[in-house]
Amino acid sequence: MISILLNNLLRTTPRLAASFYQRPSAVGCRCDLALVISIGRKIWAIPEGYIPGQSHGPAPAMTSHEACCILNASEKSAHVTITIFFEDSNPAGPYQFEIPAKRTRHLRLNNFKKPRAIPRDTPYSSLIESDVPIVVQHTRLDSRQAENALLSTMAFPCD
Amino acid sequence: MISILLNNLLRTTPRLAASFYQRPSAVGCRCDLALVISIGRKIWAIPEGYIPGQSHGPAPAMTSHEACCILNASEKSAHVTITIFFEDSNPAGPYQFEIPAKRTRHLRLNNFKKPRAIPRDTPYSSLIESDVPIVVQHTRLDSRQAENALLSTMAFPCD
Amino acid sequence: MISILLNNLLRTTPRLAASFYQRPSAVGCRCDLALVISIGRKIWAIPEGYIPGQSHGPAPAMTSHEACCILNASEKSAHVTITIFFEDSNPAGPYQFEIPAKRTRHLRLNNFKKPRAIPRDTPYSSLIESDVPIVVQHTRLDSRQAENALLSTMAFPCD
Amino acid sequence: MISILLNNLLRTTPRLAASFYQRPSAVGCRCDLALVISIGRKIWAIPEGYIPGQSHGPAPAMTSHEACCILNASEKSAHVTITIFFEDSNPAGPYQFEIPAKRTRHLRLNNFKKPRAIPRDTPYSSLIESDVPIVVQHTRLDSRQAENALLSTMAFPCD
Repeated sequence: MISILLNNLLRTTPRLAASFYQRPSAVGCRCDLALVISIGRKIWAIPEGYIPGQSHGPAPAMTSHEACCILNASEKSAHVTITIFFEDSNPAGPYQFEIPAKRTRHLRLNNFKKPRAIPRDTPYSSLIESDVPIVVQHTRLDSRQAENALLSTMAFPCD
Repeated sequence: MISILLNNLLRTTPRLAASFYQRPSAVGCRCDLALVISIGRKIWAIPEGYIPGQSHGPAPAMTSHEACCILNASEKSAHVTITIFFEDSNPAGPYQFEIPAKRTRHLRLNNFKKPRAIPRDTPYSSLIESDVPIVVQHTRLDSRQAENALLSTMAFPCD
Repeated sequence: MISILLNNLLRTTPRLAASFYQRPSAVGCRCDLALVISIGRKIWAIPEGYIPGQSHGPAPAMTSHEACCILNASEKSAHVTITIFFEDSNPAGPYQFEIPAKRTRHLRLNNFKKPRAIPRDTPYSSLIESDVPIVVQHTRLDSRQAENALLSTMAFPCD
Repeated sequence: MISILLNNLLRTTPRLAASFYQRPSAVGCRCDLALVISIGRKIWAIPEGYIPGQSHGPAPAMTSHEACCILNASEKSAHVTITIFFEDSNPAGPYQFEIPAKRTRHLRLNNFKKPRAIPRDTPYSSLIESDVPIVVQHTRLDSRQAENALLSTMAFPCD
């Protein structure tokens, strides 16, 4: 029982699984976690979200935008689903993307089209779910005024 | 005893509870954590806080402000209490908000009124407490000069 | 033995101690962790550090500066020691500060004087240590050009 | 078996090892973790990466650039390997650096030359690996327009 509890404890926290060798158990459980460090997590949240409706400067580089930057350092293609939450209406989505193994994608949320575009000048939040571990960072370029402003933060890992 | 310890260990770390199935225990404890991943935490801190007293540009979009962006991805309404800490006086609050299930709120700290407004041009910190898991991000738009500047960071999860 | 291991495990991770009740142990160890959630950690690192040597705009608000924003939400006064690391010389410090219980301090690193000022236009890093849990955020205002720019991030908790 | 599991659990999470004294084990394993707090982690990821191809202002201070700021607070020299991931091509690297004990390095990714320069105006991600614990922060200065903009975030710890 204790081994099962510990095994579950390790299974639920990918970081703890690192350097954990495959080994037979003396008390009858299977500790089959391989010696692999997962780069990232599978569920990420970004509470801040706001696509300015105005821009200065040449498109698309200086267009006001938000980016959801995703690193898939794993050996498998990542199938990513993004859900958008609003203040006064039901969540929108799923927005679906595939990120190949050993690749990054800098998804511009202002370019999301299916199932529908994200409205401008509207507060929102994002929830990002993947079938393989990824790392997610959030960046905004705001060019409403003549000189652009930037913000960025790592998303919050939820699993 | 060991099961109780482990059970408490799991209970105190919501992330560890993920994918932990409801099961009877072989040694007499109840491991009743359901297979639910909580999106976020219940206690968050933001050490940085400063509402610039001046602004350029059209209100309210370009008014200098700080936002406490909260995602409640849960199935329950979140009752959120914010306490404001200062350098030279007692904490202010509680500032209370309700965030419906599956919604976000981008609270502007410069609009807080009850129990009292947060003074301008004054360093402060925020502590955010909720009865259900949430995710919190902190953003400032500073338009004291002609061109706005932005900063943002995820708040720090304390539980 | 197992209880001792688990007890140490809990003792070393303040977050895990939350909601852990004082209880006598069935196997002879003392699990004396109280039902208190510590707000923050005791050791924090900020790898980025750079105080621009030039500024535009009225001092001190618009002077280029870096701030180490600290929240002490505990019931005890925090004694904080900051060490500054450089690229090509030995660390400087200790810089010492006291932050009263239930207070914040937004320390401006460009104002540090003892044991010596932090040089301008020089890359550095900070290590912040406290005797009670605190939360630390790093912010820079860069006003080398006419319009100020801002950056901010939570420091990294090391314990 | 249980001790081995716990020992591995502790070994894989450096933070948990803090304040864990060297002790003989009552059940035959060696718990040889010393009373040392490691400052940081060994594997870090930065999903966001973009070196603007244009700049305003005097070089090198105001040249658009990205910095990977690394603190090595340990007693040992850190051998750091950086891998760069792209959207449409294989990863580049390894970029190798040595950071002496008790030193910081603010590596400018726009100065990386071997094995090859990082292309401008191209989305990328970074994976940073070290043989001793370090702390990593990511900063960009964007001076494509007349007034510079800044962003910064702590990198994501993967081990």
